Amino acid sequence: MPNRRERGEGMRVDGRRNDEIRNVKVTRNFTKYSQGSVLMEMGDTKVICTAMIEDKVPVFLKGSGSGWITAEYSMLPGSTQTRKQRDIAKLRLDGRSNEIQRLIGRALRSVVDLTALGERTIWVDCDVIQADGGTRTASITGAFVALVDAVNAIDKVTPFKRYPISSAVTAISVGVVHGEPMLDLCYVEDSKAEVDMNVVMNSKGDFIELQGTGEERPFNNIELMDMLELATIGNTALIEKMKETLGSSMDRVLR
Amino acid sequence: MPNRRERGEGMRVDGRRNDEIRNVKVTRNFTKYSQGSVLMEMGDTKVICTAMIEDKVPVFLKGSGSGWITAEYSMLPGSTQTRKQRDIAKLRLDGRSNEIQRLIGRALRSVVDLTALGERTIWVDCDVIQADGGTRTASITGAFVALVDAVNAIDKVTPFKRYPISSAVTAISVGVVHGEPMLDLCYVEDSKAEVDMNVVMNSKGDFIELQGTGEERPFNNIELMDMLELATIGNTALIEKMKETLGSSMDRVLR
Amino acid sequence: MPNRRERGEGMRVDGRRNDEIRNVKVTRNFTKYSQGSVLMEMGDTKVICTAMIEDKVPVFLKGSGSGWITAEYSMLPGSTQTRKQRDIAKLRLDGRSNEIQRLIGRALRSVVDLTALGERTIWVDCDVIQADGGTRTASITGAFVALVDAVNAIDKVTPFKRYPISSAVTAISVGVVHGEPMLDLCYVEDSKAEVDMNVVMNSKGDFIELQGTGEERPFNNIELMDMLELATIGNTALIEKMKETLGSSMDRVLR
Amino acid sequence: MPNRRERGEGMRVDGRRNDEIRNVKVTRNFTKYSQGSVLMEMGDTKVICTAMIEDKVPVFLKGSGSGWITAEYSMLPGSTQTRKQRDIAKLRLDGRSNEIQRLIGRALRSVVDLTALGERTIWVDCDVIQADGGTRTASITGAFVALVDAVNAIDKVTPFKRYPISSAVTAISVGVVHGEPMLDLCYVEDSKAEVDMNVVMNSKGDFIELQGTGEERPFNNIELMDMLELATIGNTALIEKMKETLGSSMDRVLR
Amino acid sequence: MPNRRERGEGMRVDGRRNDEIRNVKVTRNFTKYSQGSVLMEMGDTKVICTAMIEDKVPVFLKGSGSGWITAEYSMLPGSTQTRKQRDIAKLRLDGRSNEIQRLIGRALRSVVDLTALGERTIWVDCDVIQADGGTRTASITGAFVALVDAVNAIDKVTPFKRYPISSAVTAISVGVVHGEPMLDLCYVEDSKAEVDMNVVMNSKGDFIELQGTGEERPFNNIELMDMLELATIGNTALIEKMKETLGSSMDRVLR
Amino acid sequence: MPNRRERGEGMRVDGRRNDEIRNVKVTRNFTKYSQGSVLMEMGDTKVICTAMIEDKVPVFLKGSGSGWITAEYSMLPGSTQTRKQRDIAKLRLDGRSNEIQRLIGRALRSVVDLTALGERTIWVDCDVIQADGGTRTASITGAFVALVDAVNAIDKVTPFKRYPISSAVTAISVGVVHGEPMLDLCYVEDSKAEVDMNVVMNSKGDFIELQGTGEERPFNNIELMDMLELATIGNTALIEKMKETLGSSMDRVLR
Repeated sequence: MPNRRERGEGMRVDGRRNDEIRNVKVTRNFTKYSQGSVLMEMGDTKVICTAMIEDKVPVFLKGSGSGWITAEYSMLPGSTQTRKQRDIAKLRLDGRSNEIQRLIGRALRSVVDLTALGERTIWVDCDVIQADGGTRTASITGAFVALVDAVNAIDKVTPFKRYPISSAVTAISVGVVHGEPMLDLCYVEDSKAEVDMNVVMNSKGDFIELQGTGEERPFNNIELMDMLELATIGNTALIEKMKETLGSSMDRVLR
Repeated sequence: MPNRRERGEGMRVDGRRNDEIRNVKVTRNFTKYSQGSVLMEMGDTKVICTAMIEDKVPVFLKGSGSGWITAEYSMLPGSTQTRKQRDIAKLRLDGRSNEIQRLIGRALRSVVDLTALGERTIWVDCDVIQADGGTRTASITGAFVALVDAVNAIDKVTPFKRYPISSAVTAISVGVVHGEPMLDLCYVEDSKAEVDMNVVMNSKGDFIELQGTGEERPFNNIELMDMLELATIGNTALIEKMKETLGSSMDRVLR
Repeated sequence: MPNRRERGEGMRVDGRRNDEIRNVKVTRNFTKYSQGSVLMEMGDTKVICTAMIEDKVPVFLKGSGSGWITAEYSMLPGSTQTRKQRDIAKLRLDGRSNEIQRLIGRALRSVVDLTALGERTIWVDCDVIQADGGTRTASITGAFVALVDAVNAIDKVTPFKRYPISSAVTAISVGVVHGEPMLDLCYVEDSKAEVDMNVVMNSKGDFIELQGTGEERPFNNIELMDMLELATIGNTALIEKMKETLGSSMDRVLR
Repeated sequence: MPNRRERGEGMRVDGRRNDEIRNVKVTRNFTKYSQGSVLMEMGDTKVICTAMIEDKVPVFLKGSGSGWITAEYSMLPGSTQTRKQRDIAKLRLDGRSNEIQRLIGRALRSVVDLTALGERTIWVDCDVIQADGGTRTASITGAFVALVDAVNAIDKVTPFKRYPISSAVTAISVGVVHGEPMLDLCYVEDSKAEVDMNVVMNSKGDFIELQGTGEERPFNNIELMDMLELATIGNTALIEKMKETLGSSMDRVLR
Repeated sequence: MPNRRERGEGMRVDGRRNDEIRNVKVTRNFTKYSQGSVLMEMGDTKVICTAMIEDKVPVFLKGSGSGWITAEYSMLPGSTQTRKQRDIAKLRLDGRSNEIQRLIGRALRSVVDLTALGERTIWVDCDVIQADGGTRTASITGAFVALVDAVNAIDKVTPFKRYPISSAVTAISVGVVHGEPMLDLCYVEDSKAEVDMNVVMNSKGDFIELQGTGEERPFNNIELMDMLELATIGNTALIEKMKETLGSSMDRVLR
Repeated sequence: MPNRRERGEGMRVDGRRNDEIRNVKVTRNFTKYSQGSVLMEMGDTKVICTAMIEDKVPVFLKGSGSGWITAEYSMLPGSTQTRKQRDIAKLRLDGRSNEIQRLIGRALRSVVDLTALGERTIWVDCDVIQADGGTRTASITGAFVALVDAVNAIDKVTPFKRYPISSAVTAISVGVVHGEPMLDLCYVEDSKAEVDMNVVMNSKGDFIELQGTGEERPFNNIELMDMLELATIGNTALIEKMKETLGSSMDRVLR
């Protein structure tokens, strides 16, 4: 079967090229109480990411001198086409949310020196207000910005001896849709993707986490390579966006 | 003890007169999936209010011909000064949230003819993203706008024989702070209020619900009258704001 | 439409005048383990109210020198016409019960000097064994008697420097039924009330809490005034009953 | 070591002989909504037992023509020396309560022909308001009376072809205290009992359920025989009490 | 009615005599992490029993010098004919499991001197992998073996002054099937048993716990005596099996 | 830093080469009630995998003609070095278990034609009895065998028109330990791995799911390629093992 490009259609639902990410908009200081507070928009996907500091650590770290970063992820009931029932109504944390918040936490911790952070916890909350595909990757990228702001808020009061963030972290989704590898799937693309992959990278271009799933069919090595290439393009673009957004705060991260 | 005015201070923390409400900003169509979606801002208090339609009713109404309106209220973890733990982390719905969402539901149902609505449920969700006092009253007012938009969305597809909304509903807080009755308390005022009252009214100036609490001390009839007068001023101002925001949609409500 | 009185019916289902409360019966020392234990009967509404002392306080008060009063409210499964399922069967605290127990706690704390009480908790439990309207107000009044007995039990062993109870607290329901304001609604009246209001007052005639709801329709200022007048009559009668029941224990409260 | 009798003490804490049960008081129609409602008192142990009829059965019996009897047991927070935390506060049914309510259900079902009962459920609730030992056995005996009243309430409206209750059921505790077998232990005795046994019997003198536990030490065949003899004496006395309480209603059961 | 034997059928489904237990197989060190780990097989009933040591005790024993033994019982979903839903899927501990694990805990504690054990907890877990009747009694017997191994593991590192186990404990089920008393019922027999009894005994032949239920009908004294005799035969056989399995470890227990 | 091989150590803790999997032992028909029942052993990791058939589907598939496969994963308390608390004790499904059971379900569904399966559910349960690394991948491989047996059990009774399994599925872990890529990590290796990856493949050598995490540090493309090569070696070896274990049943899968 001729693919979309061969059929001369050449463009994605929203007019993007296959290797193009959506419009990214990062609004810092979105709300006033959290030390870091970001409205992260990737196309129509919108996530509120906050980072709050607490001056104690979980039991397993008490007295260790080390800090902790923990993340929670949730979707507002009105963020999806069909209303998403709240977790508390079912008395259980949604399985998918649980998986995602564990991923966000690992991604952020991978670029932070928890010992340099000191015995404090940074609570990161990602609340999706509009879900149009890629909410987990948008959450990671947005949460990183909130994290930097929270870390700098600590630094302003009690300067760190060693700056605890050692690299930026961003994430993007890739997939194979109608046989074609594509970058940063929106919901319509995601729902018909044959293969779906989330790629978390640092600002040095290394992988932090890969999660690839053959949703509709298995995938081979060539498809994998194509997707990884696209993911590298996407994360590189996001790193540029981070530099623009965070300005001088990013210099310190990248040093 | 001379009160604030007698002491010549004359103004509230944010420069308002005692009978003045905060800046109100109502953004309709804030997100794209819900039939009604409103960002309600009263000063620094910000609540996302969505209204979604489901084509079935709770068990107790099945086959009755009557519809239902149900409301849920929650605060994002980053919406408060100290991080607010999610309900699911404690496996219980927060007691205060529960009380508030019951109030929102009653307030909305009081202006809707559920039989005219037909056998469908309107799910209203109020998620506070920034809490600076008066979140429950802002939720009611914002939810009303979302409700109108949702009802009109139904109407566009399957026009109602009888328009189900019979009046507007708005709500405002009043209180006694340092001995002075005040309208629309912000967080700083609320936290030192001696008496605190939430007043839900319809567009005819009647009461739908009153909840007054002597937080620090009991209150007498005179104070009550003063507060009710202020509440009437506040709700009247909100009704004007509703007309402005909803435009022609409001005409139908007020007919 | 002529109202009930104009139609010459003149009397309520149980023969009371509109400004008359039901028979009140307060049995102290109803059970033997609690420091305060009361069977509170208002007409056919029957609530067991106990007050037990624990020599520690919640975490947020540890070391503060201040005590705490907490209340729980529940209905026995057999207390209502249709069996009331236990909370544990649904794994959630009933929304209405939650609202009521918060109200009871606030009402009792409003007349107690928690610092004078010292670092101890008084656990108040209100368990409805027969519900015929007004269970929340009967609970408040009955709980007050149990509280006095518990406080005096402490006093007997380790006398208070300052007696911690500063006023009596009672509560009564009022409403508008078939257009007529009425005092202390029984279940049959309550279920057809247009407006419903619970009024908590202290022994000085001031308000501690007001909760008015337009169940069937909004209400205006005049109706509100009528209801508040009836509530004052009702609470005054209850205070008299308290004096009778508590005897000399009441003197100390009222001093 | 010489036992109590050999030491010439001869009497129990409350002056009873070893083979004597406590005062039994059975108040029928204790509350007004349940078809059966009993206040069961054995000495200072007091349990409210209600039986309510529901015109449907659990899923596993739907369409079977058979009815069901289910029992729940709970202790009010104020029923014990130290306040008993509510199950809902821990989000779990108390282990002991669970065990007891399963026992009550089995005991009642053992004397009822569920097919004769027809497709309806009888909900039995036993709520302990004062616990002085033997609450589970008092619950069984009291629940039986409530059950008879509920069954007769059905019978009055739609007479049974076959009367569904085939025997009375009562229960009593026995134990070994300071080496002496004793009947119907009160709390003080129970707390120092070496062996503890609950015996459920029918009105023909047969066993329905036996639960014996060597609390402090194992027990032998002779002790077992002694305890069973006492249990027979106790249950026989309770059957006499049932006849007295239920009057002609009991005739039908015993026929 | 002539019984099975009189009807010349003479044998049970699996060819055993009425006073015969099933094949018992006890595999010690079944898994490698637990200090005691046993695969207990009685006929087709298979239970994994592990005992693990924790160097702390529940709050109520802190500082008492005394240790604790706690037991949990569960059935794997695939252990029964129809899949057994996991407790976590219903958010409640299964009522029957709860009852059984309380029984296992009591049985084990009855043969252990908790003070001699010292301030440590032994966690016993009984997980049924195949259920063919008598899982609770197999669990008790298997758990005892695991307990001995765990206690000896402690003893090897920090020898006990006083050996904490004072006796062996085993358990067996008995019942009346088609009018005949039988020992160690398999599932087919259990499901048609009229009377069912679980008997926990120590190695001196005394009773630790008796739980007899008239499943289909009441039972009389003679039947009870018959069942107790069979239970004694069964537990004696199990004690012999224990000696064989535990070898010299058993000597110390029996001393 | 010279790696292990350069330092001449050449071998892993258990003497394997870096590209070697552990001993695999697959015991079919491990228990008797489940249609598929497997004891899966990979080295010291042991998992009981059962597959049971239920003749109905989840609500979202009712009437669709399509079947469903669902998986649950759990670890017995005694399966780990430190006792693993049961989920029900915390009233929440373990986050990691949740993630793993979602992975198992996706992996199995990827090789099954759910429409060919018909409206039935296959419940797969993976219960770890000894955890020595790689429990999730062992669960997938073992669950596949149980699934085949369950599908064939259906086929025997009501032969499938189209055989619903289209490929085998196996899974293996790979990682980077001390700078060296390694296949099938045991617990000791896993706990010091810098990078960790789980690879699910089908019998055609394609990927079904990839999950790679930089546990201790990010990883680059070369390391990724090395790991994928090892994973292919491992899964190929497992497919051979599947053929051996399943014999002719595997032919049908591979056709």
